[in-house]
Amino acid sequence: MIGRLNHVAIAVPDLEAAAAQYRGALGADVGPALDQPDHGVTVIFITLPNTKIELLYPLGDASPIAKFLEKNPAGGIHHICYEVDDLPAARDRLTASGARVLGDGTPKIGAHGKPVLFLHPKDFNGTLVELEEV
Amino acid sequence: MIGRLNHVAIAVPDLEAAAAQYRGALGADVGPALDQPDHGVTVIFITLPNTKIELLYPLGDASPIAKFLEKNPAGGIHHICYEVDDLPAARDRLTASGARVLGDGTPKIGAHGKPVLFLHPKDFNGTLVELEEV
Repeated sequence: MIGRLNHVAIAVPDLEAAAAQYRGALGADVGPALDQPDHGVTVIFITLPNTKIELLYPLGDASPIAKFLEKNPAGGIHHICYEVDDLPAARDRLTASGARVLGDGTPKIGAHGKPVLFLHPKDFNGTLVELEEV
Repeated sequence: MIGRLNHVAIAVPDLEAAAAQYRGALGADVGPALDQPDHGVTVIFITLPNTKIELLYPLGDASPIAKFLEKNPAGGIHHICYEVDDLPAARDRLTASGARVLGDGTPKIGAHGKPVLFLHPKDFNGTLVELEEV
């Protein structure tokens, strides 16, 4: 069912410093900072040959990333995103297996403009999993 | 400098349950459990179309994964691995930038039989980064 690993999202306490490090010390292809007010984040995409890294930084007062950084002041991996062909079918298969979907189970439009759902970390080895329909 | 994302490693408290979930609920291509005594882990590789997920479970008394699971009983993402062409050159570039390499800086043979180094999470946004020479 799951397809490609779409991205790994890393919450960072200093977006410019993290971007400079990936661009300089790690020599990666680092994009510009993009504000996404609907998601409460500023994002920088790092393009690797086979997938993407997303650097996440809080934007606005109710950012979900702010709480994560309070608990993890140095930053940390926030979530991983798997691609699926059919998000409602994936949701139904997962909930039938006993896994919990965050929110009311209705796909939202994610940071890439595509439908997404998040799965409960407690049901997936402490890992927040995003599913994105591609 | 960095190339492909080679894998995302997830420490899990129940290897068989995690494998069954990735095989069943997530419908992924899940390999057999492989003991790696030199690394203190039992590993299951999950092959996605563009990269791999590694499920890690402690093996033996001195497993680095046991300590991680003590702190994170539900499991969690343990590290991410980037590929590089020339590991000594990558190490020298990173240490010149001020980043710390774990251990004495000498590449070890990693879980895939290739030379690896780990970078200090405090220097990389709270993320343990493995570099693998391919």
